[in-house]
Amino acid sequence: MSLLDEIREQPQSAARFLDRQLGQIASISAAIVERDPSYVLIAARGSSDHAAIYGQYVLGIRNRLPVALAAPSTFSLFAAPPRLDGALVVGISQSGRSPDIVAVLDEAARQGRPTLAITNEPDSPLAVAAQHVIPLEAGPELAVAATKTYSAELLAIAALSAAMVAAAGTAGTSGIDDDAAQLHAVPDAIAGALSLESAARDAAKRAATARAAVVLGRGYEYGTAREWALKVQELANVFAHSWSGADFEHGPLALVEPGLPVWAIVSEDAAGDALAPLLARVRQDLGADVLAISRRPDLGAIEVLRPPAALAPWLQPIASIIPAQLFAAHVASAKGLDTEQPRTISKVTLTR
Amino acid sequence: MSLLDEIREQPQSAARFLDRQLGQIASISAAIVERDPSYVLIAARGSSDHAAIYGQYVLGIRNRLPVALAAPSTFSLFAAPPRLDGALVVGISQSGRSPDIVAVLDEAARQGRPTLAITNEPDSPLAVAAQHVIPLEAGPELAVAATKTYSAELLAIAALSAAMVAAAGTAGTSGIDDDAAQLHAVPDAIAGALSLESAARDAAKRAATARAAVVLGRGYEYGTAREWALKVQELANVFAHSWSGADFEHGPLALVEPGLPVWAIVSEDAAGDALAPLLARVRQDLGADVLAISRRPDLGAIEVLRPPAALAPWLQPIASIIPAQLFAAHVASAKGLDTEQPRTISKVTLTR
Repeated sequence: MSLLDEIREQPQSAARFLDRQLGQIASISAAIVERDPSYVLIAARGSSDHAAIYGQYVLGIRNRLPVALAAPSTFSLFAAPPRLDGALVVGISQSGRSPDIVAVLDEAARQGRPTLAITNEPDSPLAVAAQHVIPLEAGPELAVAATKTYSAELLAIAALSAAMVAAAGTAGTSGIDDDAAQLHAVPDAIAGALSLESAARDAAKRAATARAAVVLGRGYEYGTAREWALKVQELANVFAHSWSGADFEHGPLALVEPGLPVWAIVSEDAAGDALAPLLARVRQDLGADVLAISRRPDLGAIEVLRPPAALAPWLQPIASIIPAQLFAAHVASAKGLDTEQPRTISKVTLTR
Repeated sequence: MSLLDEIREQPQSAARFLDRQLGQIASISAAIVERDPSYVLIAARGSSDHAAIYGQYVLGIRNRLPVALAAPSTFSLFAAPPRLDGALVVGISQSGRSPDIVAVLDEAARQGRPTLAITNEPDSPLAVAAQHVIPLEAGPELAVAATKTYSAELLAIAALSAAMVAAAGTAGTSGIDDDAAQLHAVPDAIAGALSLESAARDAAKRAATARAAVVLGRGYEYGTAREWALKVQELANVFAHSWSGADFEHGPLALVEPGLPVWAIVSEDAAGDALAPLLARVRQDLGADVLAISRRPDLGAIEVLRPPAALAPWLQPIASIIPAQLFAAHVASAKGLDTEQPRTISKVTLTR
């Protein structure tokens, strides 16, 4: 199993997840809705933190739940942890072994709050610490860079959001049916996105000489921008920096100079409507070399990797990340780097 | 007034803030504590978002209040905003004019939640939307890059934390007196940090040839790392990327190669204890060119900008950012860039 094998395996792992876990997620969601949390606290690091950012938008917009991304060190390094009244506390970790993430769930349990672990290792310390567990069903992930566990984390969060909508009775029956149909369309949409590999490889060749790059996204796709940047950092040693389009305008826009690679995920919703004009400006007025992952028809002369299947905007990030993963792997290959074992980092990082 | 003038003015603006605002903040805090919020939602962008990150640690550790950093677009771009039961909602903005930040406070008011604006413009839309206002008292800030309003935002949050501790009666009298004494030590500590200008200028000369850099911090100083990176991005067009030390180990560590500039703020607390060994590794094993802002005695051969006055760790970030601001301004000068009006960005950014 190589990194590219794990990337290509994602339609199967998504289908397996839906097949095995939806029933269990319905029960977990009913128990959570019963507790009526006023907000969600998510603890995660690395790629899992980008899944948490996706959760911030999905749970915020669809379930109207504010999401706080925990500063784990306030639980693990300092004496008095925050009080968690009203919180649903979620830990997301591929390995389930990072002590600082486990510490957040331990404290939540101590305070009697509902807790949920989303992890690929259902026997891990994180899973043991949590009241509820959603296993990712992704199979062993051997490459150091997370790929199939990232899309599985997004799918777990999406399924949780759909089940909580159903359990809360906040959607009409057609809304619930529509959510279920949309979820079941994900494996094929991932398979469709995998067909972009040769286009992603061509774009990657151009990027192989870049020392730095900007990655932009907004709304549901902001987490995708963060994850795209991380893949390129860890696999291809490119200084990719991601921003939400709005934060980018508050200062970092000054970095753009002619020829700078600017990569973006531009969604077919209000967030994409806000990002598209910024991209046009960055390309036309500032001369950046812009590449987009998008299904929008209005991006003009911008080079686009276009996922063939349409998903609802809240699910699209699960397909959007696929060409970004392929792109990062091929930038690394074009530079002759080892994609299985990037230098200096390890698969399980035991931060405190 | 130039950028450097505004940086040098910070002891006076801090003293003016403490002189004029502490009484008012005591009243606001009493009103907030009366509402007994279970968590805090902060909306902010750019430098103000880094002040919000400081708030996440200060309010989390000292007041045991979880802090959620709002995704403003979930309020401004999508139909159904999150429900805010239990939240204290805070907007932080120098200008008080960004529509997406105002939208969060408008929605909180609609839901009957307590709201607070921290802004340099007490007549701005943000201040008008809020129930309570803390004016920064920083005077007009003319340079595009925020400096004195950033330290003023930190001081406002610190004063709020101290007043909420006092109002909640969660500290003994000595704790409250100690907090007040510590706050009043801030202006002199800032003045002391300004004495590092020539050392910061020397370090900046070396950095003038860098295209990319890593900036690290943890705990109270994580926001400082974010702000240091932003100053260098917008003033000096260096691809500076900040991470918490823990997130950095989950992947981006792969970016480090011999000679890469790695800048860090290393605090005298548990967060600094965790960061110091990572810095030593990055320097000795990976050959990075490490520069630290720190008062720690245990950083070995690492080059250090050492603020002369000790503050408690929760207040130290207000002094730590000073040499970082000076450093960024001098990198820009060494590169012959215009520090008053960096290219392509503007002082007030009206994102939606």
